[in-house]
Amino acid sequence: MPSTTRKRTATAESASMTTTPQWVYRFSEGGAEMRDLLGGKGAGVAEMMRIGLPVPPGFTITTEACNEYFARGQKLPKGLWEQVTAALHATEKELGHRFGSPDEPLLVSVRSGARESMPGMMDTVLNIGLNRDTLQGFIAMTDNPRLGWDAYRRLIQMFGRIVLDIPGENFEAVLSDWKQRRNRKADTDLTTEDLQGIVEEFKRIIRAGRDMEFPEDPQAQLRMAVMAVFDSWLGRRAVDYRRAQKIPDTLGTAVNVQAMVFGNMGFDSGTGVAFTRDPSTGERGVFGEYLLNAQGEDVVAGIRTPNPIVNLKKELPEAYKQFMQTCAQLEAHYRDLQDVEFTIERGKLWMLQTRSGKRTAQAAVKAAVDMAREKLITRREAVMRVSPAQVDQLLHARFDEATKNAARAAGRYLAKGLNASPGAAVGVAVFDADTAAEQGAAGKAVILVRPETNPDDVHGMLKAKGILTQHGGATSHAAVVARGLGLPCVAGCEDLQVDVVNKAFTARGKVIKEGDLISMDGASGEVFEGALKLTQPAFEEQKDLITLLEWADDFRVLGVWANADYPRDATRAREFGAEGIGLCRTEHMFFEEERLPIVQRMILAKTDGERQAALDHLLPFQRNDFEGLFRAMDGLPVIIRLIDPPLHEFLPRHDELLLEVARLKIELALERVSTADPDAYRRLSARLEEREQLLAAVETMREQNPMLGLRGCRLGIMMPGLTKMQVRAIFEAACNVSKKGVKAHPEVMIPLVGHVNELKAQRAELEQVAQQVMKEKKVKVHYKIGTMIELPRAALTANEIAAHAEFFSFGTNDLTQTTCGFSRDDAEEKFLLRYVEDKILPFNPFQTLDREGVGELMRICVERGRATRADLEVGICGEHGGDPSSIEFCHMLGLNYVSCSPFRVPVARLAAAQAALAHGGGLPAAS
Amino acid sequence: MPSTTRKRTATAESASMTTTPQWVYRFSEGGAEMRDLLGGKGAGVAEMMRIGLPVPPGFTITTEACNEYFARGQKLPKGLWEQVTAALHATEKELGHRFGSPDEPLLVSVRSGARESMPGMMDTVLNIGLNRDTLQGFIAMTDNPRLGWDAYRRLIQMFGRIVLDIPGENFEAVLSDWKQRRNRKADTDLTTEDLQGIVEEFKRIIRAGRDMEFPEDPQAQLRMAVMAVFDSWLGRRAVDYRRAQKIPDTLGTAVNVQAMVFGNMGFDSGTGVAFTRDPSTGERGVFGEYLLNAQGEDVVAGIRTPNPIVNLKKELPEAYKQFMQTCAQLEAHYRDLQDVEFTIERGKLWMLQTRSGKRTAQAAVKAAVDMAREKLITRREAVMRVSPAQVDQLLHARFDEATKNAARAAGRYLAKGLNASPGAAVGVAVFDADTAAEQGAAGKAVILVRPETNPDDVHGMLKAKGILTQHGGATSHAAVVARGLGLPCVAGCEDLQVDVVNKAFTARGKVIKEGDLISMDGASGEVFEGALKLTQPAFEEQKDLITLLEWADDFRVLGVWANADYPRDATRAREFGAEGIGLCRTEHMFFEEERLPIVQRMILAKTDGERQAALDHLLPFQRNDFEGLFRAMDGLPVIIRLIDPPLHEFLPRHDELLLEVARLKIELALERVSTADPDAYRRLSARLEEREQLLAAVETMREQNPMLGLRGCRLGIMMPGLTKMQVRAIFEAACNVSKKGVKAHPEVMIPLVGHVNELKAQRAELEQVAQQVMKEKKVKVHYKIGTMIELPRAALTANEIAAHAEFFSFGTNDLTQTTCGFSRDDAEEKFLLRYVEDKILPFNPFQTLDREGVGELMRICVERGRATRADLEVGICGEHGGDPSSIEFCHMLGLNYVSCSPFRVPVARLAAAQAALAHGGGLPAAS
Repeated sequence: MPSTTRKRTATAESASMTTTPQWVYRFSEGGAEMRDLLGGKGAGVAEMMRIGLPVPPGFTITTEACNEYFARGQKLPKGLWEQVTAALHATEKELGHRFGSPDEPLLVSVRSGARESMPGMMDTVLNIGLNRDTLQGFIAMTDNPRLGWDAYRRLIQMFGRIVLDIPGENFEAVLSDWKQRRNRKADTDLTTEDLQGIVEEFKRIIRAGRDMEFPEDPQAQLRMAVMAVFDSWLGRRAVDYRRAQKIPDTLGTAVNVQAMVFGNMGFDSGTGVAFTRDPSTGERGVFGEYLLNAQGEDVVAGIRTPNPIVNLKKELPEAYKQFMQTCAQLEAHYRDLQDVEFTIERGKLWMLQTRSGKRTAQAAVKAAVDMAREKLITRREAVMRVSPAQVDQLLHARFDEATKNAARAAGRYLAKGLNASPGAAVGVAVFDADTAAEQGAAGKAVILVRPETNPDDVHGMLKAKGILTQHGGATSHAAVVARGLGLPCVAGCEDLQVDVVNKAFTARGKVIKEGDLISMDGASGEVFEGALKLTQPAFEEQKDLITLLEWADDFRVLGVWANADYPRDATRAREFGAEGIGLCRTEHMFFEEERLPIVQRMILAKTDGERQAALDHLLPFQRNDFEGLFRAMDGLPVIIRLIDPPLHEFLPRHDELLLEVARLKIELALERVSTADPDAYRRLSARLEEREQLLAAVETMREQNPMLGLRGCRLGIMMPGLTKMQVRAIFEAACNVSKKGVKAHPEVMIPLVGHVNELKAQRAELEQVAQQVMKEKKVKVHYKIGTMIELPRAALTANEIAAHAEFFSFGTNDLTQTTCGFSRDDAEEKFLLRYVEDKILPFNPFQTLDREGVGELMRICVERGRATRADLEVGICGEHGGDPSSIEFCHMLGLNYVSCSPFRVPVARLAAAQAALAHGGGLPAAS
Repeated sequence: MPSTTRKRTATAESASMTTTPQWVYRFSEGGAEMRDLLGGKGAGVAEMMRIGLPVPPGFTITTEACNEYFARGQKLPKGLWEQVTAALHATEKELGHRFGSPDEPLLVSVRSGARESMPGMMDTVLNIGLNRDTLQGFIAMTDNPRLGWDAYRRLIQMFGRIVLDIPGENFEAVLSDWKQRRNRKADTDLTTEDLQGIVEEFKRIIRAGRDMEFPEDPQAQLRMAVMAVFDSWLGRRAVDYRRAQKIPDTLGTAVNVQAMVFGNMGFDSGTGVAFTRDPSTGERGVFGEYLLNAQGEDVVAGIRTPNPIVNLKKELPEAYKQFMQTCAQLEAHYRDLQDVEFTIERGKLWMLQTRSGKRTAQAAVKAAVDMAREKLITRREAVMRVSPAQVDQLLHARFDEATKNAARAAGRYLAKGLNASPGAAVGVAVFDADTAAEQGAAGKAVILVRPETNPDDVHGMLKAKGILTQHGGATSHAAVVARGLGLPCVAGCEDLQVDVVNKAFTARGKVIKEGDLISMDGASGEVFEGALKLTQPAFEEQKDLITLLEWADDFRVLGVWANADYPRDATRAREFGAEGIGLCRTEHMFFEEERLPIVQRMILAKTDGERQAALDHLLPFQRNDFEGLFRAMDGLPVIIRLIDPPLHEFLPRHDELLLEVARLKIELALERVSTADPDAYRRLSARLEEREQLLAAVETMREQNPMLGLRGCRLGIMMPGLTKMQVRAIFEAACNVSKKGVKAHPEVMIPLVGHVNELKAQRAELEQVAQQVMKEKKVKVHYKIGTMIELPRAALTANEIAAHAEFFSFGTNDLTQTTCGFSRDDAEEKFLLRYVEDKILPFNPFQTLDREGVGELMRICVERGRATRADLEVGICGEHGGDPSSIEFCHMLGLNYVSCSPFRVPVARLAAAQAALAHGGGLPAAS
């Protein structure tokens, strides 16, 4: 038995070694499912033939042949040409024409066709097979010498430009020169005689440019065209594109060889392109254009203006009817919007190409919803048809491309930075947060322009229409806050020089001063001078989107919550469909103008009494904020995180204080010398003393690595009154609104827990205050206590931590920082973007969750946490909660919900549904 | 059947509910193995009785009785007193005396006896059972009225002070008053009549102090004394001690009740204490002292000067001989140095206590080695007898306690900080690194005093005898570098105010200026004014220690390597027994004076050419360093880590530059106004420009969280010439020394790898240079390439990383930082020490490896790494590599070696052996 097996294997091997693979498929042999092998175009043509549509016959050379071509050092695979010849014979037979024959010659087109269309691939070469001899046969067949000479002229021109890589201008120059000399207005005015002369000149160009004759041998024409298609696969532009899109080089391109049909045989002929629905709005009805008596390139060339497709109804009613039926049939067959090319030859319709049609976000949503309503597709398919990025686009104000093009043409383009938060904004440039806050509050549209932002700037950001920074990456403070606020943001716009002192920035030699109008597009990262026209969609008016998201909700397993710090954000999040607040950052409330001085008093307090007084002062503010949140989220859970950032963030910057003290000392010295004004001296002296004390306090609090410093629950433990005040505010608020019939479900989140004892200590303090308040208020509220998982140690010891937490929420921003050792504030600028560019990292882990590293810790955490507490509520509240790939991973891990900024909620609803449809019902991922 | 079972269970339950536990054990019932139940003293006495030594009879009340006493709210357990009475009867029977009887009364002592002796526990009460009646019987028995009245006086005094908690001074005052009035010099001069009077006065004190009569009832005396022992278990001092030592409160204390014997029955009687060997040197021979005609407390009290034990040979030769035999028997029985108490009553020897004797580090080593040579213990036991901390003590210079006491008495004590690196140093205070380097190089002993240190100070630290800092914790830069250099260091000495500008510090009102002599003890954290006398042991002279460590080497599985940056350190490490270099930090070489300017030129280079020129300049320095290392470690592996820290560490500080630029601007402005000296103006102007450029460069490199920033392999990737230069230096050095017969085994370590692609990229570059150099030099050297595991992501993806690394080395300092989110530079000062104090963390994770968090990542890493590459070499090079508990854990994980600073190598050798003896042969820990 073993010997038999061995023998059989040996036979199979030798067979595979001797049998030539099938390099060529006739269209009648292929189909849509063979896209990898035949490319998109080849598979589409074959599928049309399979369902009985009129397609000129031909064949496809496979992508595998392309790979073999490169494997053999740019030589055609063995046996390929035999197969090409056989397929060509079959085509000849079908049509009764012969390739290269002076009688009734067969002409073919050669087109590239990779799996996905991509820039840089070889264009079409038409009319292959023509030479001086076959031209005569063709003229005899068509009885049209001008058509024949024009076809020959086109072949030489295309072959020269595309296959032989001679600059197109050389041919264009001859053409225009000829037209000028003979006084012909358009190409169509050229006579047969003209064309004969031009052909001669074209052949001369080839001779001069490539030191060779134009190949008259049809076989040589075909062979060279096929190899040119293959070669274009490794052309610079195509390779760059694939790198950027992460498309492997091993896919290869196919080559389609198809019998020619002619739309330029007279006014019973024509050619056109169409979409089966409007690709910009998604409205039903075939949308396209055509030209009579023209070849395909004429429609695109823009020399003659094509007609809207509906005109064809009058001009060629039979062909029109057949074309409409064909479009309906194709859409029904593919169950999607199709982008088609067709030619009518002497009244007969020929279909040349069909593919899924590119569409705008709006069209994608409308088409998906309509098709589901038309029962063309299921709701599940409709949900899978729209990308989360398309949903995102629909939620932000935007500039039309036309508007931007006009602005560019007018020289108003200024710079391009990172597209950090989508949406477009128009406003006057301001260069500090106070001015932004002031003018914004007064109703002026302002764009805050800063070298970079920090928490001191938040009060200004709150009142701005957009944020523009010179430095910082996609997860810089500016970007994160802007996304949280749904504000457009262009970050890291290094083309600008922001001069805060003189309140101006420079870009492309222009100086934009405070008060000058600018426009910014957060989706593209572009900045313009002046005011561009805005298009602003409203969520509640986007009925199709709302419908699609409702369908998505039926499929998704993950809850979708929102990160919101203010009642106003919570209200918006709820409108967008949020089912809870996954993160309220209490410290953002601390940065508001009237509160910051109290917070600073609390931090700088020299006695417990002073500190408590400041805390007591803060309590009503916080309580008021929380009441608003609970009211907005009536009946839904609200996770409130206790104060998290290092306290020095609430104090003036060390650098600035250092310089101010130095300056004051010198002023004082000069004043002492002059002794002109004892009052001024006394004032300066007092100011210096005050600043020196503040500087000393800031120096005491300064840390080398504040991200790894005194923050999170460490603050609560080192400064106990702080936790007590916040918890009291939360529970007083919950009790107060409960008395007015609002259902408050506070979940108190303790940040940055690394050791279970931290949680135990804080929890004990918290429970005590909660019970006390509820007793005072005589109200019971249902609450949970949990922790943020943002340190590797917390994830690893989740079994211990879960014993004292009813919920976990992954703070994946911080978890990414510590797991990967990347400072969020610096890494992107310093090396992370370079890493992504150089393919050291596949993506920026602050935007898309690093499944192998951070994700592995999350997996361990969920597994260990649920082992201790089976009903542990687990969510994510880092920036990743709004990223589709990360949402998919959260679904795979079996999380309960994702929480993201309000404007990402619709995106997350769709992404969560798509994850559930792709992976099934939210089971924990296999380890 | 089930019913039977149930019935049996029920019976057992009711039995356990009705049976009283055994609360009391007669000495003849106990033994050494019952230490938990009987306490150390009770178990020791019982064991002595068991092996036939003369012990006065008695019994022990168990630690369980103590716990029950507290469980019942400080009431004696049920049945306890019945058992005490029974045991007392047995004792009476044995001796033929009766407790409380006026004829031949039995007197007893009551002593506490927990498992471990601890401060704050109740002292001994002697002579319990005496009252006016039994005193007469005692006098009749002993025929010694003075002895009787003295015993009665002692009972009342001890009982009053210890049981009734009346200040001892009250009794002492009466005694001295009486002696003065009667003109008696010593207690022994007091007559029977005197003592009778004193007894009356003592009773009055009790009456006044406690509003009660001295209890004449012997039963009441015994009962109150027993309860007083129990109560002392929860006394303030005992509780504090247990908290500090992590001894659980549930251990409880036992109470020993023992028949009295009298060393004060004349000059054929006596009492003493002794060690079976010298506890300070470990020399053989009984070491102790005694007094004739005295009770135990007299020996301790210091009123009479005790005699060395050898004198007893003449005075009571029979008792002496018996005592010597007993000591030998006890040491042989316990197989350890014993600390004993004895009494001789009318020529008869009674043993009262034996326990393992406390000893100095030197004695511990000598005793262990001697006993093993005497075959009293095995070598394995000898290795287990000495603690790693004791070995550490033996390696550092020290001040004798007597020396320090004398300095304190002379008012020269200045301050106490953290004992950051052991050893003692004497030198003149200097306040900046340059002066330290200069004076140190000139042969002057200097102590570098700084507010804190940073890498700029290393050149000064290298030449200092000790480091003293005002700020910073046990893993601050100063501490880490000092331990690495084997330099004494007192860190975080907040009692000092260091004034760098005026080059002085203030402590306890004294000002120490540059050049003043100070002494510092890194083992205790103390700082003194002036020069204290130093005792400096040399490793090679400590023959016993060397022997012990050689024995340890036979048991250990873990290799012990050393972290060394300089050839000199490597040589020392090798002398200490290091088997390789586990970490050479190449950047330390960069900080040396002549090199730093070149390094700065490299960093600030504006063109690739400028950078390469600087790198070329650095190459010979590095090559020279590496040659020295390879020569020192001939035949052993040397792991060289490529440059790791952020580059701004090599540049001037941002703050300082900021202030300097501000100052220069003002100076320039003033100069411009005066226009006195155009040259000065030009000079200032040029300087300002230069500093502004430097400031701009520093600002560009500045990072919010440099620990998580552009460092480690990220530098090598962003600045490729850097890796190339270092690798070339390594391989040129290896080839050069190989040609001279030295066996060089370089292992190149790539730091801070988080993603396998980083390693792949760096490895490729490295291999290319290595091959190139070996080709140029025509020498092959055996080398390895590996990575430091210091990021959680690296540990989690160890399976991928191991595919491209021949070795892993855990950088547990950084791994602790990221796993726990603790900045090493700040955390200790800001919160970590408080966390440890408040028991939120059991220990400082930068000193002792956090097994649950960091250790869990290490476990995962070893498991995944070895799954990919079974022979992966795994070690540790973080500070933990020299910590005994962490070494134990590394053994349990199956690591190949630990690497620590040279001075910790002997400690690590012992700790590794102890880990292997405790846990067996280095198998991977169970998950």
